[in-house]
Amino acid sequence: MTSVITLLTDYGLADGYVAACHGVIVGIAPESRIIDVCHLVPAGDVRRAAAILAQTLPHLPPSIHVVAVNPVGGSRRAVAVEAGEHVFLGPDNGVLSWAVNACGGASAAWELTNEALFRKPVSPTFHGRDILAPVAARLAIGHAPADLGPQIPLDRLASLPVPTSKVRDDSVEGEVLSVDGHGNTQLTVSADDLNVIGVRPGSTLVVWLGRRHVSVPFRETFAAVPPGELVAFVDSAGMVALAVNSGDASQRLALPPGAHVRLSPAP
Amino acid sequence: MTSVITLLTDYGLADGYVAACHGVIVGIAPESRIIDVCHLVPAGDVRRAAAILAQTLPHLPPSIHVVAVNPVGGSRRAVAVEAGEHVFLGPDNGVLSWAVNACGGASAAWELTNEALFRKPVSPTFHGRDILAPVAARLAIGHAPADLGPQIPLDRLASLPVPTSKVRDDSVEGEVLSVDGHGNTQLTVSADDLNVIGVRPGSTLVVWLGRRHVSVPFRETFAAVPPGELVAFVDSAGMVALAVNSGDASQRLALPPGAHVRLSPAP
Amino acid sequence: MTSVITLLTDYGLADGYVAACHGVIVGIAPESRIIDVCHLVPAGDVRRAAAILAQTLPHLPPSIHVVAVNPVGGSRRAVAVEAGEHVFLGPDNGVLSWAVNACGGASAAWELTNEALFRKPVSPTFHGRDILAPVAARLAIGHAPADLGPQIPLDRLASLPVPTSKVRDDSVEGEVLSVDGHGNTQLTVSADDLNVIGVRPGSTLVVWLGRRHVSVPFRETFAAVPPGELVAFVDSAGMVALAVNSGDASQRLALPPGAHVRLSPAP
Repeated sequence: MTSVITLLTDYGLADGYVAACHGVIVGIAPESRIIDVCHLVPAGDVRRAAAILAQTLPHLPPSIHVVAVNPVGGSRRAVAVEAGEHVFLGPDNGVLSWAVNACGGASAAWELTNEALFRKPVSPTFHGRDILAPVAARLAIGHAPADLGPQIPLDRLASLPVPTSKVRDDSVEGEVLSVDGHGNTQLTVSADDLNVIGVRPGSTLVVWLGRRHVSVPFRETFAAVPPGELVAFVDSAGMVALAVNSGDASQRLALPPGAHVRLSPAP
Repeated sequence: MTSVITLLTDYGLADGYVAACHGVIVGIAPESRIIDVCHLVPAGDVRRAAAILAQTLPHLPPSIHVVAVNPVGGSRRAVAVEAGEHVFLGPDNGVLSWAVNACGGASAAWELTNEALFRKPVSPTFHGRDILAPVAARLAIGHAPADLGPQIPLDRLASLPVPTSKVRDDSVEGEVLSVDGHGNTQLTVSADDLNVIGVRPGSTLVVWLGRRHVSVPFRETFAAVPPGELVAFVDSAGMVALAVNSGDASQRLALPPGAHVRLSPAP
Repeated sequence: MTSVITLLTDYGLADGYVAACHGVIVGIAPESRIIDVCHLVPAGDVRRAAAILAQTLPHLPPSIHVVAVNPVGGSRRAVAVEAGEHVFLGPDNGVLSWAVNACGGASAAWELTNEALFRKPVSPTFHGRDILAPVAARLAIGHAPADLGPQIPLDRLASLPVPTSKVRDDSVEGEVLSVDGHGNTQLTVSADDLNVIGVRPGSTLVVWLGRRHVSVPFRETFAAVPPGELVAFVDSAGMVALAVNSGDASQRLALPPGAHVRLSPAP
């Protein structure tokens, strides 16, 4: 059976870095299939990588996932985390945690210390090529996770704060979870949350950003409003998103990831 | 036999959207081969997508083509169009029409209404992932097109205006068909058209843009003129193109797609 | 056995040009595996392509490599060069030479003149699609290199000047070999060179750029200094590189590829 290996990095596409990872994998596991999840994650943006992985995951077959995104300031130990039918390889900085949760939580984890599985010499600046890719390829051809290194207690794995929303009275509080390449601003608020406060497609939302607020039509798709206008809709990951049809909502509203928002029905 | 599925979208490469489509396809048709035609089509630019598809098609093996490019203002019904040894899946907005013509015209077409073949729930903003990709994968593993939905009369399929040129007296009239990523400006004029009005490689063209006109050397390749200079040549799709060696002809001449041009031999 | 074909071009990702090459290869060699090395080489930047290829090569399995990067001013004859377990196809403009050296040098070379192996008609502006890709695919399915055309004496192959460093007294002279997509500035100086002049990780380098000079900490990774600060480290290709943590060293230092530098230990 063909194993699927996915790659998610901040390496960019202007160099041979991604190809080096492909080459290492193909050299060890020539029958594996590689899916490039994304290589244009902003450098070191762990939260963005975590969101992309968690939201793409439901559409990927059982896979071995390589995630190489590290914040400025250095690397963490590399780990393998088993969750559902997936195995995730990456730095223990929380980048894997949202995807692991999306699989129902970790069932086991290992620290990658078995250097016999690495590509040597290991470059201090390219663990994706020298540690994560060869370990993924070796799992693909049948190495047991127990070979990778010592097991890690699951409660010692790093994790990002879980994106949350809070319904109180007739409003929902949440934050900006992720901004995609088009500037669409995804909130930690679900369609169910809006339903609870009585907002359904066709009605109008008030979005509070600190002391500012804007009225935004809530529609089925961003295309339901004229170009240049703000709209809220349930995006393809099932979350409420703010968008500007043919524009950039994140810029328009000055709403970076992590920004606090409150939503209420228009009076 | 391995089926080939191609993908052409305006999803960009900065998110996991393309990977989600790959994942859906691999999950259903693990033996299929995927060719990414292009994912950097400007958002909603149906004409540009149509040109890329039609001009790449002669170099692709018999394939199932997924095209997910919709203009602002909403989606059209999704269709499958059989033409030659190819099947095209996409919105019925004309984006498929030039490629279908390049295959000798449609032999049959179906509306994609069989929800049993979709990925559910279908996101209103991501038909590529939830309708087109899974249907393509199911065709790849042997589903019959007749399963997709009701057949459509071929004369009811949307189509883009066919790019045309008109030779009159000693000049050719046409328009800008497409501008590629380098700014090369492809016209709807063929090498044969130029031949009819007596222009052959080595001679000089006069290009009329409304009341303006410029003299442009007609050469075998854009590299035949010094960097920074205008040149006309027959491009890799067999059409006459205006280029600036190491520059951007579309910007220099202020010639967007659809702009009218007239070509005549230099006196 | 599956053959691996790699592609390195300056075609960009905004068009269908790369897909046309994939299509030609898959049409001829459906079982081959394609690795995209990079398609965002700056137009005609032979030196950059040569550096990417040579530095990615150690991580690629035995492959047939297609390199389509030509400087402005026209094409050279297309050649095939055999070196180690690799075959390189590209223009005879030196772009292959560093990779061929990295394989221990050429063992044989041929000019690609056998038009029966090409895709016809051959576009004067798209040899990658019409000459290099189909020849690579035919080698992949078992054509002998001797079918490609006449053999070329190895000393007649074009080559780029070999990047060199020179240790004299207590300093090393070299030049900028390559600038990657992050602005990291790779020198032609190795870790061994620095060792000879007594510079080891943890100490400080003086970098002379003509009459200017800057002091730069020499560390294990760029992440060892605070964001925004200059650092020298041994990069993932084993060369000394100048970087700005989370910044662009090439811009900061105004150091383009080819610029001369001299390194000495801090007093």
